[in-house]
Amino acid sequence: MITHSSGNHGQALAYAARRAGAPCVVVIPDVAPAVKVEQVRALGAEVVLVPPPERLDVAQERAEKDGLALIPPYDHRDVIAGQGTIGLEIAEDMPDVDVVLVPVGGGGLASGVSTAITALLPRAKVIGVEPELAADAQESLAKGELVAWPTELNYRTAADGVRVNLSELTFAHLRERLDRIVTVTEDEILAAMTRIVRESRLVVEPTGAVTAAARLFHAGELPPGRTVAVVSGGNVDPRLLIAALS
Amino acid sequence: MITHSSGNHGQALAYAARRAGAPCVVVIPDVAPAVKVEQVRALGAEVVLVPPPERLDVAQERAEKDGLALIPPYDHRDVIAGQGTIGLEIAEDMPDVDVVLVPVGGGGLASGVSTAITALLPRAKVIGVEPELAADAQESLAKGELVAWPTELNYRTAADGVRVNLSELTFAHLRERLDRIVTVTEDEILAAMTRIVRESRLVVEPTGAVTAAARLFHAGELPPGRTVAVVSGGNVDPRLLIAALS
Repeated sequence: MITHSSGNHGQALAYAARRAGAPCVVVIPDVAPAVKVEQVRALGAEVVLVPPPERLDVAQERAEKDGLALIPPYDHRDVIAGQGTIGLEIAEDMPDVDVVLVPVGGGGLASGVSTAITALLPRAKVIGVEPELAADAQESLAKGELVAWPTELNYRTAADGVRVNLSELTFAHLRERLDRIVTVTEDEILAAMTRIVRESRLVVEPTGAVTAAARLFHAGELPPGRTVAVVSGGNVDPRLLIAALS
Repeated sequence: MITHSSGNHGQALAYAARRAGAPCVVVIPDVAPAVKVEQVRALGAEVVLVPPPERLDVAQERAEKDGLALIPPYDHRDVIAGQGTIGLEIAEDMPDVDVVLVPVGGGGLASGVSTAITALLPRAKVIGVEPELAADAQESLAKGELVAWPTELNYRTAADGVRVNLSELTFAHLRERLDRIVTVTEDEILAAMTRIVRESRLVVEPTGAVTAAARLFHAGELPPGRTVAVVSGGNVDPRLLIAALS
């Protein structure tokens, strides 16, 4: 099997492939944190590093050439359903939740979580969170049509897990099910990451901190009530973590 | 209210006092990590730093002088019962658990968890874990009588949450309910701490890593089967965490 990923989905696929005894190739943008590349390799997968704009094309070509199944990181109903199990867990653990904050990159996680929450807890609101520097989904929702931001814009954010654009499939989910999208700045993301490490004792990467940043610094833009922030991504560059602790 | 604590119980009491609007004094050994002292102060409690052997006497004198209720960190049935709720959670979440690993310092957490687990899951075994450098509980269980180690021995371990001796009360619990005690070295504790931070994405202090160290480095001394390690203590000195990540 093969995928293209900033590293988190790639690790998941490498893990699944190893358990299944199947070969695995992960195409990773060559600007991804080294820690993510190392962890994919440690799980036994072959890593192919490419310039960011080429990730999808290289993955498709290699899939055809070697007869590998391409498992997309977000643009597939099954992947969305799998990521949506987080929404099922939230609904089970906290049926009186009022607000769920979910990061938006390619939109798979946000599509799955918002589908699960709106189906099970129609009273609750699901809010997407994006870095201000990669706010293609916010613009897409505002315009009512899918807007893709160029790679050089999206790749400015430190939150490397949400540098990609929505697909038609995830856009269709999000326009139906998200209440809105809130954006956060780079300083807010790093401050939230530091708070989570120091006070919640969780190791998170910048992408994992965007939802907490929205709650900490943009509470006025959020509906009131009991709030769950989905913290997704703990593969942080140790140097960045050390800087956050210093 | 008042207590004596290396910092973790002190933080809990300071938090509870603030919620109850009550004054709180925490007597802390003057060799405790600065981060623990700061966190107790940040919760609004008064901190009294004392040489380690004086912690109990100073707390008792101050309690009498100011009419404060002394809430012991482990030597009380209610405190043991409170810490034992972790055992209730384990039994609820994993009723087929075979082995529960629990750190042993004063023995309150181990007493509570072993009482809950042996009552609810009599088939499961509870194993205590101590640093080799503060193994008073292991010696006490071996001799069948309470043995206190001098402060200067117990304080050699980096696991500052388990530098104290058992009390008669906790010894009575543990001799009935612990299957055995396994000891771990300082190198094993720090290696386990690094593994937990890097791979489990949890920020832990050395005390919190002793049970994982037992599982990682002393598996041959443990019964087989599904194992839960109670990870207790996340108040790590940032410099130590940085060293673990470097």
